[in-house]
Amino acid sequence: MKKLMNNVNAYVDELLDGLVAAHPHLERVPGTQVVVRKQLADKVALVSGGGSGHEPAHAGFVGTGMLDAAVAGEVFTSPTPDQVLSAIRAVHRGKGVLLVIKNYTGDVLNFEMAAELAEAEGIPVAKVIVNDDVAVDGSTYTVGRRGIAGTVFVHKVAGAAAEAGASLDEVQRIAQKVIDNTHSMGMALAPCTVPASGRPSFELGEDEMEIGMGIHGEPGTHRAPLAPVSDVVNTLLERIFAHTPAKPGDEVAVLVNGLGATPLSELYIANRAISEQLAARGVRVYRTLVGEYMTSLEMAGFSISLLRLDDELIPWLDAPTDAPAW
Amino acid sequence: MKKLMNNVNAYVDELLDGLVAAHPHLERVPGTQVVVRKQLADKVALVSGGGSGHEPAHAGFVGTGMLDAAVAGEVFTSPTPDQVLSAIRAVHRGKGVLLVIKNYTGDVLNFEMAAELAEAEGIPVAKVIVNDDVAVDGSTYTVGRRGIAGTVFVHKVAGAAAEAGASLDEVQRIAQKVIDNTHSMGMALAPCTVPASGRPSFELGEDEMEIGMGIHGEPGTHRAPLAPVSDVVNTLLERIFAHTPAKPGDEVAVLVNGLGATPLSELYIANRAISEQLAARGVRVYRTLVGEYMTSLEMAGFSISLLRLDDELIPWLDAPTDAPAW
Repeated sequence: MKKLMNNVNAYVDELLDGLVAAHPHLERVPGTQVVVRKQLADKVALVSGGGSGHEPAHAGFVGTGMLDAAVAGEVFTSPTPDQVLSAIRAVHRGKGVLLVIKNYTGDVLNFEMAAELAEAEGIPVAKVIVNDDVAVDGSTYTVGRRGIAGTVFVHKVAGAAAEAGASLDEVQRIAQKVIDNTHSMGMALAPCTVPASGRPSFELGEDEMEIGMGIHGEPGTHRAPLAPVSDVVNTLLERIFAHTPAKPGDEVAVLVNGLGATPLSELYIANRAISEQLAARGVRVYRTLVGEYMTSLEMAGFSISLLRLDDELIPWLDAPTDAPAW
Repeated sequence: MKKLMNNVNAYVDELLDGLVAAHPHLERVPGTQVVVRKQLADKVALVSGGGSGHEPAHAGFVGTGMLDAAVAGEVFTSPTPDQVLSAIRAVHRGKGVLLVIKNYTGDVLNFEMAAELAEAEGIPVAKVIVNDDVAVDGSTYTVGRRGIAGTVFVHKVAGAAAEAGASLDEVQRIAQKVIDNTHSMGMALAPCTVPASGRPSFELGEDEMEIGMGIHGEPGTHRAPLAPVSDVVNTLLERIFAHTPAKPGDEVAVLVNGLGATPLSELYIANRAISEQLAARGVRVYRTLVGEYMTSLEMAGFSISLLRLDDELIPWLDAPTDAPAW
């Protein structure tokens, strides 16, 4: 295992220090693994988070117009309820807090427990659960569909609405609308190694890929021989379109998300195929994001997320943000 | 070799298609591997480029306030003079063109030949040669020091000056000033594989790293057993500081650049060590960039670049740009 680190037990602590050192408009809540905006606004606050190892998710999406706080668990491990509660307390400014939770059993449980504790303190808390991954229904760590890279669309759109002064109910409704209109699926070429375990999270043959792989290495739909990327894109889009993410004439935002070790050049090659195949399906691309938004340490592979847009969502998608990773 | 691609011979062509599909304010010059801004301004034009495989460099830095054109050679191969000439012709708007060339023998030769051809057509052309890599003096492909990630500072600062209306002489002077004040050095944990060769560019043992490795896998200063990242950072900064990149009290911009397969989490862990060690040297950090700016396909490792700032450079560094990768 080759990692650029000092101490496996300080991996998350040190990465958060390095992150706030690089982005001085962010800071850590002392004694926690919570990253918050230094300048909090008088508005509904957004809190997200989850296991670490998915950088820039989620602390890279803290900033004006996106999240107010991100809670970092250990690598691939849900943050504890007290950490989430610290985040809620740190960002609440009287208008309530929306929790954006990826659908993993541990995350849901711990964020919900924190919400109960916060409400007992008189803080209004609402939540949404992101389950954009159409690959499998029920998986290691998850009942129902998993939450993956499409979560970033929820941060962006709901964050912009909150920044503009929408109420807690309204921000929750908009976040849920993004979730209802976001569909994702990924694939992997090679595993990652969690620092504390020191061993690859799964094994794949020399010429093998896994379709539908989760962001913690959870099994996907099947393994197959490595194919040209246009065929891989077709396989992913076939399954995504089984859920009717968009009809002909609809406009979508596209996120081509690298999982950590896939060169940007290859994400662009994938995007070429994606844009061609969406055009062939009559779907118009309003905006495309290509890069690393929700990684799996140094896993090789990528995911596609589609967000169906309308006149309500587009301005929030395009609103300014100073979150470092948008 | 596992690559997300369709055809090894179309690798660059397809990645450029995917890039302009994602970023509609950019377009390709038909029949070339040149990416240009669709809206060209009446100003000095900046052209850079080089071999592909370093994405987002250089096409990701085309945009308002940065480059006007990027010329993409085949992977790790200099672009031909006629491709560079196409770029110069495409962006010249009467005020002349500055070529930003990384110091590799092939790049220098081919960009200079294109400059001569352009001048024969009456286009004023100036050039700067970036040689920020302090690791070795003379290397495979290079006489003198190599140009690596610090090149991005040249794009940003000189691009902003050009956007503000500076003359060709003035933009060249500012670009050279950035070069004179930029020092970089990198290291690698694992090699990359050029698609056309299908084999790793070098080999490293299980517990080995290479210090001073070039962005095409050129040899560095030495190999050593893998060490804690704070020690690795110390080794790199020791050598960088032998060139007096900044004195106590000076202000610098820091670029912590991932080479392709290194998780962002680990770049942040490295940045923690960098910011501590710069503070210990009395150097103030004005701004920090952490991410993938000049990669080597899926090489694992990172580089540090320092740009010493002054009152002239800071406003250009902070000026707005719509280049997708800044």
